[in-house]
Amino acid sequence: MDVLFHTTNPFKGVIVERDRLPPDPATFERQLSHSIEVWKADGLLTVWLEVSIGFSDLIPIGVKAGFEFHHAGSDYVMMTFRLVKDTFIPVYATHYIGAGGVVVNQKDELLVVCERYRRDNKPSYKLPGGSLQSGEHLQDCVIREVKEETGIETIFDALVCFRHWHGYRFSKSDIYFVCRLRPKSQDITIQQEEIEECLWMPILKYLESEYVHAFNKSIVRAALESPGLVPVEMEGYPDRKEREFFMPGSLSLGSGTSSSHNL
Amino acid sequence: MDVLFHTTNPFKGVIVERDRLPPDPATFERQLSHSIEVWKADGLLTVWLEVSIGFSDLIPIGVKAGFEFHHAGSDYVMMTFRLVKDTFIPVYATHYIGAGGVVVNQKDELLVVCERYRRDNKPSYKLPGGSLQSGEHLQDCVIREVKEETGIETIFDALVCFRHWHGYRFSKSDIYFVCRLRPKSQDITIQQEEIEECLWMPILKYLESEYVHAFNKSIVRAALESPGLVPVEMEGYPDRKEREFFMPGSLSLGSGTSSSHNL
Repeated sequence: MDVLFHTTNPFKGVIVERDRLPPDPATFERQLSHSIEVWKADGLLTVWLEVSIGFSDLIPIGVKAGFEFHHAGSDYVMMTFRLVKDTFIPVYATHYIGAGGVVVNQKDELLVVCERYRRDNKPSYKLPGGSLQSGEHLQDCVIREVKEETGIETIFDALVCFRHWHGYRFSKSDIYFVCRLRPKSQDITIQQEEIEECLWMPILKYLESEYVHAFNKSIVRAALESPGLVPVEMEGYPDRKEREFFMPGSLSLGSGTSSSHNL
Repeated sequence: MDVLFHTTNPFKGVIVERDRLPPDPATFERQLSHSIEVWKADGLLTVWLEVSIGFSDLIPIGVKAGFEFHHAGSDYVMMTFRLVKDTFIPVYATHYIGAGGVVVNQKDELLVVCERYRRDNKPSYKLPGGSLQSGEHLQDCVIREVKEETGIETIFDALVCFRHWHGYRFSKSDIYFVCRLRPKSQDITIQQEEIEECLWMPILKYLESEYVHAFNKSIVRAALESPGLVPVEMEGYPDRKEREFFMPGSLSLGSGTSSSHNL
């Protein structure tokens, strides 16, 4: 009997080769059962079984063999099996990330939006912003969202505060970062689908409005008063697409002294 | 023919009732096909179909009907179907979150660890820390991880900087927050499984060590020089377990003046 094609990882885990699974469910069932016995005898700890959507007939067979679901992409399900009871299996991604922009112009006016769909009928002025796309940097996300919702082009200045919230969606958590941006333009173009109203509102009026939540007022004050965390380049990480670093704006990094060059 | 039991959401989405799915695959196949026609005629946009692990026989039938996978928990798979082409379906959680602690004692020594499993044989001193558990606050995570790895009890002081990294695991991203903590004790107790070495190292020695990465040196300097972002309570959010807010340490929130009370 053949053992399923597989590789192993440094943590004594079996990675079943997705592209070499037998398409016939009965064959897969026999080979999986045999493989599990062999892997147990070899002292391995876990099995990772990725089933692509075209092979979804194999999923119930994995379940029957004792596999659990670990996560899914649009076209596959990743299943796991503990060959040894209580072996640690790392969890999948736990968080959503969003970002909003505090954009203040030279007349001390704040760029605010009122969303089209809201829980009650009262207007509620909030910052433009939205969700991070896959692989997107925070800086790029907030600039893109402000542009999409309001038409205003901006330059990233600093990240000033954030909110961490559990139970956001599908039992997962969410972090909402607030960033200070400088406007490059003044003329508003509303995104009609989601935004009902968009305007430059005098900051004092915003801070006194009954339609603005306490958290949103604090955000604006934080953006006005604090240097925040600024994006920096980090020695040893030349690929700026893969990583971004945020450090205190006041930090004397790259100050030009010989000692700071050694960091 | 019966339409599958379901509710609808405000975005014209159908939520199929998981606990009332017909267990028989042939019945499910007929009802699903009929339901899709009815929902299309009713002008609905998307279908959310959660299949629990005990009903995994129904998954290939959903796939055959045109459903995609959206996400999975250990005991269920969530599948989605667009009744209208190109309808927006929000993505699932995109990020892992971790936190590390900069713990400095009164002798200007930094608490560092050397992990047991590393890519090369050179020692590499890093901050104690680890991954956020489901529903855990950042403050609690970093205090817990420092205690687990080093035995040192700490008090949370401020969040000083962070790193955002794409392509961390399973094509998802990771944010690593760095926090400043004050030690409540001095005696180290190593977690033997993961940590090979743990010590209080003079900060200057750490900043000069060839075994410390540039990013880790920057972290420590940021923690020494910056007030950072501090946890604050926010009016209107009494449930401290569900949300935490981080604001600039310098911000004059709750300063006792009458104007700040209105925020």
